[in-house]
Amino acid sequence: MKKKVLKFGGTSVGSINRIVHAAKIIKKESELGNKIIVVVSAMAGKTNELISLSKSISNNFNKRELDVLLSTGEQISCALITGALSEIGVKAQSFMNWQIPILTEGENNNARIINMNKTKIDNYLSIGGIAIIPGYQGVSSLGEITTIGRGGSDATAVAVAKIFDTDSCEIYTDVEGVYSTDPNKIPIAKKIDKISYEEMLELSSLGAKVMQSSAVQTAMIYDIPLQVRSTFTDRQGTKIFNKENIDYSKTVTGVAYSKDDAKITLQAVEDKPGIAAEIFEPFGKNQINIDMVIQNVSSDGKTTDITFTIKREDLEKSLEILKKNKKIKFKNLSYKDNVSKISIVGAGMVTTPGVTYRMFRALADEKINILAISTSEIKISVIIHENSTVKAVKKLHNIFNLD
Amino acid sequence: MKKKVLKFGGTSVGSINRIVHAAKIIKKESELGNKIIVVVSAMAGKTNELISLSKSISNNFNKRELDVLLSTGEQISCALITGALSEIGVKAQSFMNWQIPILTEGENNNARIINMNKTKIDNYLSIGGIAIIPGYQGVSSLGEITTIGRGGSDATAVAVAKIFDTDSCEIYTDVEGVYSTDPNKIPIAKKIDKISYEEMLELSSLGAKVMQSSAVQTAMIYDIPLQVRSTFTDRQGTKIFNKENIDYSKTVTGVAYSKDDAKITLQAVEDKPGIAAEIFEPFGKNQINIDMVIQNVSSDGKTTDITFTIKREDLEKSLEILKKNKKIKFKNLSYKDNVSKISIVGAGMVTTPGVTYRMFRALADEKINILAISTSEIKISVIIHENSTVKAVKKLHNIFNLD
Repeated sequence: MKKKVLKFGGTSVGSINRIVHAAKIIKKESELGNKIIVVVSAMAGKTNELISLSKSISNNFNKRELDVLLSTGEQISCALITGALSEIGVKAQSFMNWQIPILTEGENNNARIINMNKTKIDNYLSIGGIAIIPGYQGVSSLGEITTIGRGGSDATAVAVAKIFDTDSCEIYTDVEGVYSTDPNKIPIAKKIDKISYEEMLELSSLGAKVMQSSAVQTAMIYDIPLQVRSTFTDRQGTKIFNKENIDYSKTVTGVAYSKDDAKITLQAVEDKPGIAAEIFEPFGKNQINIDMVIQNVSSDGKTTDITFTIKREDLEKSLEILKKNKKIKFKNLSYKDNVSKISIVGAGMVTTPGVTYRMFRALADEKINILAISTSEIKISVIIHENSTVKAVKKLHNIFNLD
Repeated sequence: MKKKVLKFGGTSVGSINRIVHAAKIIKKESELGNKIIVVVSAMAGKTNELISLSKSISNNFNKRELDVLLSTGEQISCALITGALSEIGVKAQSFMNWQIPILTEGENNNARIINMNKTKIDNYLSIGGIAIIPGYQGVSSLGEITTIGRGGSDATAVAVAKIFDTDSCEIYTDVEGVYSTDPNKIPIAKKIDKISYEEMLELSSLGAKVMQSSAVQTAMIYDIPLQVRSTFTDRQGTKIFNKENIDYSKTVTGVAYSKDDAKITLQAVEDKPGIAAEIFEPFGKNQINIDMVIQNVSSDGKTTDITFTIKREDLEKSLEILKKNKKIKFKNLSYKDNVSKISIVGAGMVTTPGVTYRMFRALADEKINILAISTSEIKISVIIHENSTVKAVKKLHNIFNLD
């Protein structure tokens, strides 16, 4: 008998039909003799609906009450899925965040799960019941309702897997798993059977929105094997675990890309300690996310060139911020508003020489100009002109044997 | 400084605009120096929406989980109204049923409030805050979420008034108060300024859906003065209190009527002890509500005639039940499917002779045939042909000086 966490995302419980379908999956897993804890998200669209209600009252809605409001989304899904299980003769019960309780720390809207009391759920599992619990929420030590950030139901699932020491943690979602590149745009994309936590993290931070990054991170820290699979097919999905357990016959696991980027270059910036902090501090204050940052060694020893990328919609404001910033000096400011970022990710890259060269050679063969480069141990990213995005992704997908 | 309960019904918080408006009413009351506890219903339509979700899964949805589901409705209103108060600079905080806690007993979907812990709310009031709590729900001694039946937010408001010993309990709703008859159908209807609990109970059980009956009953038992008033105008509304405090210049306070009724008469029923129980037992089992029951003394000493009314939609099933019932014997069964019930209600009736006669005379003058009569201390009801409903109500409204 195995103990399993099954997590159902928003689209997997997005309608009554889908809730009934999810209940059937749970029933099947239960009939195989597994002890099951189910973690559910709010029905697709529900959280946005609640946020929009709050925004029509205030753009700065009281944070404490926002959590009171948003936490109803998962409570509704919990009750519906438990009712659906009950209807098909499966013994199940919902457990609310405060009934368990799921203890969090940190501020409202952005708390972290630090512990859960196992007693009630363990007792219920031991009499053959299935426990249904809401993702994304908990209670603080003061008994206040808290939520743990968008996508937080993944984090709840991983925390449950850790605290209840389950044999597996299965993330049911609306895609069949993690793909070698975006299957919607690049039809040659292949589903990846096995991937390491690190690669998954790089891919998700690069736009593959299959799982929430911090949940993957927690799984990595505690070595909790994950499985991402589709609610709508029977196929295997993608297993995410320790890279020691993965056979790296392929150097590159996937090709990710982001669009709607813009690139800004500051040339001949006065090079002194803390200059990067002074450039980027006002961006944080204006809630503009900086993606890639590249600083070249200066040629004259006194100045340096700094290139960074942002979302295109933030370009105008970013230029304004830079012009207003009296703390920095530079000779020239240039920008491009039509770039995209292409990344190859693979835990096998670090032990395979020549990957970087092969990537650049391949892009050159396609006459694609590289505007900037940034590398990490398991990832190489380049900035190119947006027009060449699909061509570049297809080429890289092909030369690294992902087709 | 007064301590007040302000209760806002579903239509009073039925949209964002209305929630913002309710927040302004609360702010005004607070600025007058009152300590305030607010009880809120789910937004109009919300509870029905949740019930319909549950029904699309099962017509016999798990009762425990139904309460988990339905209780989210008031939680949402609580968070929104608290956020709206916060936005206009009023110190306010929501308190969930389990945070207070509001202790209930009895089964799911039909529990009763038996106590509340005062500590947290009293502390919050004492630092100048306004406490916002959800109506209609509580937790059992086992920590399970319970609801207390449709319209239960009124009961919560009255329970809060009793337990916190408040100076008043104001029920904000979508009508201006209690009327002498239905203002939507009979334009001469007058708003009643003061009414006793007993009259209010008769009127609400007769179809004036201004307040939930069991809440009025609780208020009567503990002598808690109520005030029903409109969220949308500044006017006084109707005060409901002990009849000792009411000056009865008028004998009759109001004229109520119900439509869509049907009448069944069993003639020459074998008269023996327990015969009524045997007739009506299967109706309860089939969830058919019996309204008025009239049993005449038998002429021959061996048989009796029994007349009763039901909702028209239950007529067919009721006839079937009677025909199948082998425990009862009768000579003849007749029925009418197009009757209505007209009632006059007034605590002053008991001390004023001739009210009954005046009512029957007035109906006779209008050539309205009376099919059945039933009286209580403060109410006289007659069954008439449905076509004459409005004519009868207008006539009675007039002769008892309510116009």
